[in-house]
Parts: sequence; structure tokens; C-alpha cells
Amino acid sequence: MEYPAEKIISEFCCNLLASVGVPADDAQVVAAVLIDTSLEGIDTHGLSRLPAYLTCLKNGRINKEPQIRVVKSGAVASIDGDNGLGQLVAVRSMQVAIDLAKEFGIGLATAKRSNHFGAASYFCKMAAGQGMIGQVFTNAPPAMPPWGGMRPYFGTNPVAFGIPQEEYPVVIDLSSSNVARGNVILALKEGRSIPLGWAIDKEGRPTTDPKEALEGAVLPVGGAKGYALALAVEVMAGILSGSAYGLDVGFIYDDKKEPANIGHSFIAIDVSRLMLDDTFTERLSDMIQGIKAVPLAEGYSEIRIPGEKRHRIMQERRKSGIPVSQTLLKELNILATELGVSPLSTE
Amino acid sequence: MEYPAEKIISEFCCNLLASVGVPADDAQVVAAVLIDTSLEGIDTHGLSRLPAYLTCLKNGRINKEPQIRVVKSGAVASIDGDNGLGQLVAVRSMQVAIDLAKEFGIGLATAKRSNHFGAASYFCKMAAGQGMIGQVFTNAPPAMPPWGGMRPYFGTNPVAFGIPQEEYPVVIDLSSSNVARGNVILALKEGRSIPLGWAIDKEGRPTTDPKEALEGAVLPVGGAKGYALALAVEVMAGILSGSAYGLDVGFIYDDKKEPANIGHSFIAIDVSRLMLDDTFTERLSDMIQGIKAVPLAEGYSEIRIPGEKRHRIMQERRKSGIPVSQTLLKELNILATELGVSPLSTE
Repeated sequence: MEYPAEKIISEFCCNLLASVGVPADDAQVVAAVLIDTSLEGIDTHGLSRLPAYLTCLKNGRINKEPQIRVVKSGAVASIDGDNGLGQLVAVRSMQVAIDLAKEFGIGLATAKRSNHFGAASYFCKMAAGQGMIGQVFTNAPPAMPPWGGMRPYFGTNPVAFGIPQEEYPVVIDLSSSNVARGNVILALKEGRSIPLGWAIDKEGRPTTDPKEALEGAVLPVGGAKGYALALAVEVMAGILSGSAYGLDVGFIYDDKKEPANIGHSFIAIDVSRLMLDDTFTERLSDMIQGIKAVPLAEGYSEIRIPGEKRHRIMQERRKSGIPVSQTLLKELNILATELGVSPLSTE
Repeated sequence: MEYPAEKIISEFCCNLLASVGVPADDAQVVAAVLIDTSLEGIDTHGLSRLPAYLTCLKNGRINKEPQIRVVKSGAVASIDGDNGLGQLVAVRSMQVAIDLAKEFGIGLATAKRSNHFGAASYFCKMAAGQGMIGQVFTNAPPAMPPWGGMRPYFGTNPVAFGIPQEEYPVVIDLSSSNVARGNVILALKEGRSIPLGWAIDKEGRPTTDPKEALEGAVLPVGGAKGYALALAVEVMAGILSGSAYGLDVGFIYDDKKEPANIGHSFIAIDVSRLMLDDTFTERLSDMIQGIKAVPLAEGYSEIRIPGEKRHRIMQERRKSGIPVSQTLLKELNILATELGVSPLSTE
């Protein structure tokens, strides 16, 4: 494991994106999201995704110079991402929602023809940073069956909330599956079985075998509840935006050439329209104290607020650097050499 | 079990509410919500709640003649329910959100100083009936600990969505607990143990004993995920509305006299601002067909769309009448006699 500093990785990211033709301003936006996600400790959705994005940018599956179009009507906007990088489309869209909320108290922006946007946290924090509550929805490639079905139809469709707080933004990021597919892959690698309820095999039978699970599907959280949540998210992010939905949502890790046509939606709510900022802050802070004051259950050493762990990890990584595995480092530096970019320095 | 017709129960409900001083128009609104909920088969949240409401209306814990106040700013509104019946406050608030969405494309109404509003479905369907996507949040009396805690702090805080569809509205109503407390009560009555993961005892230890569970707390769905969802709902419904939150949310079944001061929030999104109504309908209908076409897993005979079962039960009960247990019938008729209202006829 290497631990390059934030600034160095950031520059490296920008250079790589620019080298395949992403305009400098857009590259900075995308790099900021990736680095922030890695700083938060969500390593599966940050820097580790860059090689796949670069491949898609090179082969044209993702548009390196999208003309993102925004059509506003009242406090809502529909956005055409022109097959740009998901992070770029999402940042633009959340900014539109925030601007609408400044004007109307609440704003909604839906986005179609987008791509995988990484983790929702960054966009949630954009809203929270402006004193707003943010809601983020995105669909994703099929990985999870509807309740009672044996083949994937929905992605692990997350809904996320950002809530402004003084010490750190509260970030709630809920996928509608029980566990991410990554946990199943990890179990396979480590030769462990998986708990019942995580996944089904390709015949739709509950399985504890990670290999069979990967040929089947992950299961929704809370059974029928997670399915219902996935459906709500698919409507908010997919149906309402005009993007692909269900089985038509593309997966950038496969061999196809069609754009993924992922959909998102973003809501921003200006807290100051409903109560004084101070009142909201005081009430939220009092609630957090109340939660922290609940006596601990056996085996727990603290009650964490969603967003607290991310915040702690970010503070640590800002000092110690961002952990980059040798595998990822090698992958990135091979790409860098191919693209004529200086390799990532690990000194 | 008796099966009085919808119309007869509805009139009976209105008469009971009027007899304790609820104005006729308000009584009709509240009765409509209760009857609709019972028609949908959600018997735990419909007519069965009326005795408790009548008790609170009689003893002044709920205000029978609330002056509900609405303060609008742009596309958002904050509403003071003046301690009125939750159903009344919720119907008024969702109507405000819908009216705002007609004007701006999206509308948000928060409500404080409200009471238990029953099931969220009715309010979701109000939005769907106007071609809008609805979101409903409410807090509730403490029943569930934060993840890692051993004492309740949050209610079983639900988030609900209503989605307009031609055949029946899609209704997604997700409590943030694994199961409702009612399931634990039922297990106790039937002498069954409960599965691990449903609840903890008063020391915070996982339990399969329903008696110990009732002295403890129900657990969030998906562990930390349900806790995070409960927190998001508490912010949307409680913190943002100005209502009570956490341990201060009142429970109308206890002996206290203070108002429950429950908070809700309602968002309506006018689909026609983002795409043609027809387009939305076609896309949704295509998605529903796609979901239904997923091959069934072992042990399942169909894949249901959220809202479909409610719709079927409602069609049945519109013909066969609403099932009312002898216990509830007796309770209601004793109240009727006390209040000088003609008893519920079961002929």
C-alpha cells in the first residue's frame, strides 16, 4: 500500500483525464469527486474507478466533451447529461437543484444520459454545504431481483440524504440491497461462505456460496422493503428523468459499446426558508446529543452518526495520504505511461 | 367478525367524531382516511385507531377544532397543525404541497404540532391522483434504538412514496424498523418465539422472547441502514418542521396529557413539468411489465408491485364490506352509546 498525498493524486487524476481529452475544468470537477470519495474511505467508489472511466473515455463509450443541457420549469429542471462522466453530470445537476432551492425554497433536477457517478456523498455534501438538505437518487445496472423473482432487474439503487451540521455534514447513503456485490467478491477471494439472505444463486435459491451468489443476484435489504425502495428509486432516478431503467441500464465494465444511460435525481431544500438556520442547527445538534446519550448495547463501544466515520477518515487521510494498493497503483501508472502522463509519485 | 359496508362505517365514523365536537367537514376528512386505510387491508392503522382518537378528543389531548395555519414561502410551506387529528393535518398539508407543485413543479409542506396520522398511503394517493409523485415522512413515538444503542430513541419512522399509475397508484410505505411492534405482540399472543434480529430486550441483548422484546425495543431494518433511514426521516419530519423529535415525541396510548407534537413532511412533484404525462405512464407501465416478467424464485407464485395488494383488497372489501372484529365492534359501540350515537349496524 502506498499513501500519496491528496494534492498529488488530485493532480495525477486531472492529468489522466485531460490526456484523454476531458476539458481541464471538467477534469477538476471529476477529480474532486473521486478524491473526496477516497478521502472518505469509500475506496470502492473513488480513485479505484478511474481506470474504467479512462477506458470508456478512450473508446468513446463515455463522452469526453459532453454538452450538458438544462431545461428549467419553475422549481424543477430536466438535464440531459449527453453521456458525460456521471460525476460531472451529477455535480452540475445538484448545483441546478441548489440554485432552484435558493430561489424557490426547494429544487429538483433530474438527469438522463449520465453514467456511474461514484458515491452519492459528494453531491449530498454540496447541498449540506449550502445549508440545504439534499436528496440523491440514482439507478444502476441490474444486480438485484424484485421480491419473489430469481433474476436481477434493479440495480442496487441507492437513496442518499445530506443534512447540514456544524461539525460535519450528516450523510446517509442507503443502497437498497442487503450488501454490496463487493462483499460477496471479497468472501470468494478469502474462501469464506456468505450469510444466508445476502444472495441467491442463478436458480433463485438462497445460497451461502459466494461463487454461486455471483452467478445469481444480491438480495434487497429487509426483503420486500428493499425491493420497494429500489422501485421508488428507479422511478425517481430512471422513469422520471427519461434515462434507461431496469434491464436497459448499461454496465461500463462489460464489453458492450452502448452508453450506460444512467439516470439520477437531486432535490435540494433550503432550510432557511422553513426556520432560522440557528434553530435548525440547534435542534439537530440537540438530537445528535440525544442519540449519543442512548446507553450502549452489548458489544458496541459507540453510537455513530451517519457521516461521522467518513469525516474522521477524511481528517486522517488528509494527514497520512490516500491509501492506494500496489495493484491499483500499477494499473494507473501503466495507463499513465500509455497516455503520456507522469506516473503517480509515491515518495 | 362482522363486515359492515363502507358507507355505513363511514357515516358511523363521522357521527362519532362529530359527537365529540369535531366539525362535520373535518370529521369527513378524517373518516375518509380511516376507511380508506381499512379498505386497503391495513387494519392496524385504520378504523381500529378510532377509539384512541375519540378518547384523546374527549379528554382534550387532541384539539377537536384546530386552526391549522399555513405559512408559504416560494415552493415551500410550514404548517402548524394546532394539535389537530393527524389525518386532518396531513390531508391539509399534502394538499398544500400539491398546490405548490402545480405552481412550481415541486412543493414541500412540513407540519408540526400534529398527531398520529395513521398510514401514509392515503396522502401518497392524493399526490398520485393528481399525476404527481408524493413523498411522505413522519416521526413517531420512541420504539427503536439507534444502531449500537439499547434503548429506543426513534419511532419506526416511515418514508412513503406515491406514484401515479393508470390501473392503481403505486404506494411504497417503508417503516425503518425490521417489523412493526404489532408482529411482536401477535407472537406473544400466539405463544410463538420471534426470529433473532427483530428485537432486543431491555438490556439491549438480541432476544427471541416476544415478552422480553416488548420490554426492550424493535430493531432497525438492515441494521445500521434502518437506523440511518430513521435519522433521515426524523430530520425531514421532525427537525425541519419544528415538531417534537426523538424522546420528546408523544404517544397517545399512554397516560400523559401533553400533546404528541408529531411532525410530518410532504413533497409533491408534478410529473407533467418534467415529461409528458403519457411518456411517464408508458415508461412506468413498461417497467411494471418488465418486473412482472422476471422468472419466479422457488416458493413464490407472483411478483407484486407495491400498491397492488392494497388495490386488490380494496376492490374486494368494497363489495364484501370491511372486516370489524367483535372486540373492536364492541369497543366502538360502547363509545357510541356513551356519546349518544346510533350503534354500528351489522345487518
